[in-house]
Amino acid sequence: MIAGIIAAGHVARANPGLRLGLDVLAFGDEEGSRFRSTLTSSSACAGVFDASALGFPDRDGVTLADAIKAYGKNPAEIAAAAYRPADVAGYIEAHIEQGPVLEAENLPLGIVTGIVGQTRMRVVVLGEQGHAGTVPMTMRRDALTGAAEIILDIERTAREHGADRMVATVGRIEASPGATNVIPGRVGFSLEVRSLTDDLRRGAIATIRKDAQFVATGRKIEVTFEPFHETETTACDPAMQDLLENAIGDLGLATTRMPSGAGHDAQIMARLCPAAMLFVRCRGGVSHNPAEYASPHDMGLAVAALIRFIERFAAAQA
Amino acid sequence: MIAGIIAAGHVARANPGLRLGLDVLAFGDEEGSRFRSTLTSSSACAGVFDASALGFPDRDGVTLADAIKAYGKNPAEIAAAAYRPADVAGYIEAHIEQGPVLEAENLPLGIVTGIVGQTRMRVVVLGEQGHAGTVPMTMRRDALTGAAEIILDIERTAREHGADRMVATVGRIEASPGATNVIPGRVGFSLEVRSLTDDLRRGAIATIRKDAQFVATGRKIEVTFEPFHETETTACDPAMQDLLENAIGDLGLATTRMPSGAGHDAQIMARLCPAAMLFVRCRGGVSHNPAEYASPHDMGLAVAALIRFIERFAAAQA
Repeated sequence: MIAGIIAAGHVARANPGLRLGLDVLAFGDEEGSRFRSTLTSSSACAGVFDASALGFPDRDGVTLADAIKAYGKNPAEIAAAAYRPADVAGYIEAHIEQGPVLEAENLPLGIVTGIVGQTRMRVVVLGEQGHAGTVPMTMRRDALTGAAEIILDIERTAREHGADRMVATVGRIEASPGATNVIPGRVGFSLEVRSLTDDLRRGAIATIRKDAQFVATGRKIEVTFEPFHETETTACDPAMQDLLENAIGDLGLATTRMPSGAGHDAQIMARLCPAAMLFVRCRGGVSHNPAEYASPHDMGLAVAALIRFIERFAAAQA
Repeated sequence: MIAGIIAAGHVARANPGLRLGLDVLAFGDEEGSRFRSTLTSSSACAGVFDASALGFPDRDGVTLADAIKAYGKNPAEIAAAAYRPADVAGYIEAHIEQGPVLEAENLPLGIVTGIVGQTRMRVVVLGEQGHAGTVPMTMRRDALTGAAEIILDIERTAREHGADRMVATVGRIEASPGATNVIPGRVGFSLEVRSLTDDLRRGAIATIRKDAQFVATGRKIEVTFEPFHETETTACDPAMQDLLENAIGDLGLATTRMPSGAGHDAQIMARLCPAAMLFVRCRGGVSHNPAEYASPHDMGLAVAALIRFIERFAAAQA
C-alpha cells in the first residue's frame, strides 16, 4: 500500500496531464485469520462480496457483521460501496513473493501469470470418548489417532501430485474434550488445498476424502468434510503482464514470469477488471513468519517498476 | 463418598462397642483436569504432597497455590494436615470399574489387586512455520504432520505391547500458530502411558522416544519429551483383599480379582497404610463420559460389602 502511495504520488506529480484516475487501496482481512472468510475487503470493492460471510463467528462467537458494526460501519451498505466495472481500467498489486523462486534465480522482481486456486475445508472426526486407563487399545475408537492417519494421507496425496503443482496444509487442530487422561471423542481440523489447475485440486480432494473414509471405516469412526471457501485459479491479464515486463525492462532489469502459490486480493479484483501482480524477492522464501524480509533496495525497484508500469498503462489507454 | 457415609453410619449404629475410628474422606483433584498435578488431596492426606505442584498454572495462568488461597486455605499448612501413619489401620475405596471386565463376567463387584503405574509427559514438536501456499511439500518442516506420525507410532507401540497390559493416550494437542493458511511451526501434545508393571511402561516409553527421534531426524524437525508426572504400580494389601473377598461372600455373591487400569486415590493412600479397593460393575465399560452408569442395585451391593468388610476388618484388628 505504501508502494502504491509513493508510485501514484510520483506519477501524478511527474505527469500533470495524466488522463487516468489513480486509487490506492488498502485491503483488510485478506488472510481470514479471524473469520472463516478471506479476501472480504477486495470482494466488497469488486462487488462480489458474499453476504453469508457476515454470519461467520470468530473463536469468541463475534460475527463479521458484529465486528463491522463495532467499527462504526453498516454491513447493509457493502454492496453499494463496490466499484462499477465501467469505471475501472485495471488493477495492479505489488507483493513479496512469499516463496523461494526469485531468490534462487537472483532476480529482484517477477511477473505473476496467475494465482493458484484453493479450497478450504473443516474436517471433523468423530470417535468415542473414553477413559485413558481402562479402555484397551483394541477396543478404542480414538478420534485423534484416526485424525493423525488422515493427516498423513493428506500429506502423501499432496506429495504424490507433485511438489510444484499442489500443496495441502492442516494448520489448525483441536481434540475434544482435550484432557490428558481422556481418549478424544472428537477432533476438528482445517484443510487447505491449493493447485495450479482447478481439475488437479478437485481430483486430489476426491482422493483425500476417499482415503479418509477408508481410515474411518477401518477404525469404526466417522469423518466429514465441510468445504467453506473455494477460489478458482485466476489468470493475470496478458496485456498487463507484457506492460509490466516492459516497465521492468525500462529499469535495465531482467525478470521472470511465475505463478503465485499464495492467494491475493488480485484474484478477486480480476473479477472486476484486468488485473496484474508484481512479485518482490524475499529472503529464504519465508512468509507468514516474523522472519519475513524483503530488502529496501528491492522494494525501491518495485516502486520504480510500478511507476513505469502506470505510465505505460496510461499511455496504452490513451 | 456417599457409599462411605452410608456404610460407616450403619457400622457405627449396628456395632456400638466398635473399637475402630472411621473417617469418611472426599478427595478433590483426583483427575488433574485443571492443573498438571493429579491426586493432590489424597497426597496431602498421606503426607506425600509435592509442594512443587503449587506452582503449576492452569490454562489461564492461575496456579494451584492461587486457587487454594482463593478458596480461603493456606498452602503452607498442607504438610501439617497429613495423617500420621501410626494413627491409620487401613484404607478402603469403592469405585466404578470404568472398564468392561465385571460386566463381561456378570459380576456386580470386583476386588482390585493393584493399580497400574502411569507416566504423563508433555511432547513438543518443533518444525518451521511457513506460508501454506508457497512452500512446496518437499521443502516443508511441518510440525503437525511430524506429530501425526509420532502419534501413530505411539499407538502402534501400545498395541504391540498387548492390549490388556498397556495403554497409551494422546488426549490434548495444539498446533501453533493455528491458522488455516500457515504451516504449523510448533505442536504440543500430552502423552499418558499406563501399564501393569513399571518395567513394561518404561521400556515402551524408551521405544516411543526412540521412534519419535527417528521421525524427527527424517523430517528435519525436533521433538522433546518432558515427563511431569509418574506413579509406580501400586499393589493392594493382600490381607485386605482376602477380607474383601470374605465380605462379598457374606452377601452370597461370587467375585473376581483384577487390576485397575485407572489411577485412584488408593494408590497414594497405600503409601500411608494398607489399602484396598472394591470395584463396582458399570455399563459398557464407559467412563469419563456423560454416559457413565452403575445401577442402584450394584451400588447397594457395594455398600453392603463395605459394611461387612469394615466389620471383618475391625474384628481382625482386635
